[in-house]
Amino acid sequence: MLPYKNLIIIDKKDSLSIYRQISLQFISLIQEGKLPPGAALPSTRNLAFDLQLHRKTIVAAYETLVSENWIDNLPRKSYTVSPNLPMVRPRSYNSKRISPFSESGNFDFEHYEPVMPLSLSLNNCRIEINDGFPDISLLPVQTIAKEFKKALESSASSKRSAVNLDGGSANFKISLCSFLNKTRGIDMGVENLFTTRGAQMAIYIAASLIIKPGDKVVVSEPTYFIAETLFEKLGAELIRIPMDADGMRTEELENILKKNVIKLLYIIPHHHHPTTVTMSMERRNHLMQLIDAYNFAVIEDDYDYDFQFKYDPYLPLASGNHRGNIIYIGSLTKVLGSPFRLGYMIAASDFLQAAARMRTLIDLRGDFIMEETISGMIANGDLARHIQKTNKLYSQRCDFLSDQVRTELGDMVDFTKPTGGMALWLKFKPEYDLSKIIKKANLKGLSIKGSAYCNGKDAHFNAFRFGFASLNELELAEAVSIIKKTAQSL
Amino acid sequence: MLPYKNLIIIDKKDSLSIYRQISLQFISLIQEGKLPPGAALPSTRNLAFDLQLHRKTIVAAYETLVSENWIDNLPRKSYTVSPNLPMVRPRSYNSKRISPFSESGNFDFEHYEPVMPLSLSLNNCRIEINDGFPDISLLPVQTIAKEFKKALESSASSKRSAVNLDGGSANFKISLCSFLNKTRGIDMGVENLFTTRGAQMAIYIAASLIIKPGDKVVVSEPTYFIAETLFEKLGAELIRIPMDADGMRTEELENILKKNVIKLLYIIPHHHHPTTVTMSMERRNHLMQLIDAYNFAVIEDDYDYDFQFKYDPYLPLASGNHRGNIIYIGSLTKVLGSPFRLGYMIAASDFLQAAARMRTLIDLRGDFIMEETISGMIANGDLARHIQKTNKLYSQRCDFLSDQVRTELGDMVDFTKPTGGMALWLKFKPEYDLSKIIKKANLKGLSIKGSAYCNGKDAHFNAFRFGFASLNELELAEAVSIIKKTAQSL
Repeated sequence: MLPYKNLIIIDKKDSLSIYRQISLQFISLIQEGKLPPGAALPSTRNLAFDLQLHRKTIVAAYETLVSENWIDNLPRKSYTVSPNLPMVRPRSYNSKRISPFSESGNFDFEHYEPVMPLSLSLNNCRIEINDGFPDISLLPVQTIAKEFKKALESSASSKRSAVNLDGGSANFKISLCSFLNKTRGIDMGVENLFTTRGAQMAIYIAASLIIKPGDKVVVSEPTYFIAETLFEKLGAELIRIPMDADGMRTEELENILKKNVIKLLYIIPHHHHPTTVTMSMERRNHLMQLIDAYNFAVIEDDYDYDFQFKYDPYLPLASGNHRGNIIYIGSLTKVLGSPFRLGYMIAASDFLQAAARMRTLIDLRGDFIMEETISGMIANGDLARHIQKTNKLYSQRCDFLSDQVRTELGDMVDFTKPTGGMALWLKFKPEYDLSKIIKKANLKGLSIKGSAYCNGKDAHFNAFRFGFASLNELELAEAVSIIKKTAQSL
Repeated sequence: MLPYKNLIIIDKKDSLSIYRQISLQFISLIQEGKLPPGAALPSTRNLAFDLQLHRKTIVAAYETLVSENWIDNLPRKSYTVSPNLPMVRPRSYNSKRISPFSESGNFDFEHYEPVMPLSLSLNNCRIEINDGFPDISLLPVQTIAKEFKKALESSASSKRSAVNLDGGSANFKISLCSFLNKTRGIDMGVENLFTTRGAQMAIYIAASLIIKPGDKVVVSEPTYFIAETLFEKLGAELIRIPMDADGMRTEELENILKKNVIKLLYIIPHHHHPTTVTMSMERRNHLMQLIDAYNFAVIEDDYDYDFQFKYDPYLPLASGNHRGNIIYIGSLTKVLGSPFRLGYMIAASDFLQAAARMRTLIDLRGDFIMEETISGMIANGDLARHIQKTNKLYSQRCDFLSDQVRTELGDMVDFTKPTGGMALWLKFKPEYDLSKIIKKANLKGLSIKGSAYCNGKDAHFNAFRFGFASLNELELAEAVSIIKKTAQSL
């Protein structure tokens, strides 16, 4: 309810009668949108009390408004703003009637460029190819809901646990630490773990702490476009190193290191984004030697590690001997789906202290209840079971899609079947213009929203990520068929 | 499980027998912490398959490890790393055995100063006075859990709804918009609403978009310490304007505006943080004239609006005619409690577009499931009922604490009973050194964690926020009694 006591001002010395002063002020409130169509007016009794007037005065004011069609008198004596007022937003009727937010403020601010590639502005369609997101229809909803309720109950009954200013739930840290140790062989303690809202916040904080304007930052070409945009925003000078089938070309990195002071290397050794390439052991060893020799900071973005179709991954670079130079970033979002924004950063403890302090300014603290919820799922094995189950299905979908693409699109595209993850990287031959395919396929009921590198900086790739994890075989087949027909009819 | 296929390397030409090569490599994995005490080894069958060896070779390797006490052979033929290995982290035994994260990386990064005042480093005690947080034991846990499950189910069944890159759930925006319109009389559409992780992220994004190094920013003295730290971090030159019983002294603001170009004003007109003062109508009108005349950006931080003990608040400044110059920031965290990080920013749509783009770099997108959960609670009236119920109780607690303080601490402190909110602002007389009281009270079982201004920039205030909302009358009385005894014994 609006605070009428301060909104309706009565001037007893005014020549206008009091009931009319009230009704006119209600008309203003309606015209200004403060009382939208359908909104209830206060009861005559309450308003009379608030304004210290006789109730009959209020009734008179309301009856005037009813007779002028501003408000309706409903059964049981309640009054509401007329739902079909023709003059509710009458710019000509009352020139003052403009929302204060309809104008741009008269001050400068930074207008960010959009960071999303073209494909993300498409219409939604019957079938949507995403960047490589999990199938959230497979989520153990009952289990999550149960753990959530438990976390909420325990938090509500012990008032204090919730307030943990250094970044989230201690239980979650302990169970996540053990999960990461078991699956990734990373030798660490909870003091090396910092939990965030998804991997993106971890990248944002790590990069913001490290990069100063003018610093040289090495990325692969192409690379994860949001990270690249962020580094540029922070003032980095980007040096791009090409990829091949073995990952980033470390011999080129070595040449660059010989001639430049490099502040940071951003690398995705497993299922590289967008190309899905996994870095070879030789390159990994070479990179570790370079880190040892040149002492630069490394952000190892390992968003997709948990999905390995043969389960024979190389361990992360961070499990090796890097003397604190690697900041390892990962996420449970690829395990649980995009509604769950739980990421983490593993680093030396002095770096994490700075990260926690910076995070206070951005976000105060973590998502305590959700962290407790997922902590329960890690502890009782539900998370590992969910990974095992979905990994098996995604492996089948990857096989199926790879066969389909080979059979149906074999002469149009190049691709290498990945050893894990949730996407194929389809490179179209130059005669098939991907930006046209994306636009035309959208009209045929298919929106291709996986990162498309057919425009902008990386236009020469003419390629996109075909996320297969969230589509069933019928959908995958239909998507391939639409792409084929679209490409043939260009 | 670790990827043993890549971890255990067999050299058939080596003079060392194969089973011994295997057992030695397991010892390394244990020493390096990759296999922690209690961890399960792969079954002999699986490892034999992975390494393409005969199972008897694996059994021989494991039996050697058992005889050397590295691993245990449990019933049902499973093998686990011995839980009480004396040499698991033997620095002298193996000089290489140091976690790669135990060293600081050899690169520069920004070491943030801690932003928390002294009082937040205290031990937890029997009774804790916080900054003014709600009592989460009053949360309607069943309702929230039910809405959460519903949101999760509906999200899991319609794969696409979850991915909304411009910042969260559309349902939440619509219901929140209507809630804000009804309670605050703000004339706005959903295009003027941007949802964030708590108010802090809204302040971070708004300030980052507006402030350039060297810009002059006006704040009250004292002010919310995290916002102040943020503005300084962004390079702002802060101009501080004193408060009195009517809020920020706008006549001083006018003098400053006459002589300076001010980029941004940060103001908390309702229940000012930390002082709890509510700005008078005269000052509000004066401020609106100044905004109109000088055209600077204003962040109106209204973290506490929903708690008004008499429900006769002034409407927010943002409901007036400010032509897009005000950015209104609020939160549901003060309604639901600190585990729920849901905030929002109301502003002109071009500003919000920049905010959404910046947010992509920080955090990708919002907390979809939680937004849907709370959206359900707004729609069915549960949120409004919860506010009504808690507001009544907090009002009683405020009365009770004010009486206690007047009776017991009357000659030690000054304070003004607030008209709403969740804290008293207790100003100790100079002869009572608050920093000493806080430290000594901590030894008597009371931790005073509400923002204390007895150290740092605002040291001359010798005051702290006594959050009363989350404590019952017994706890409030005991806290006052401990403070009294501590102060008397200084």
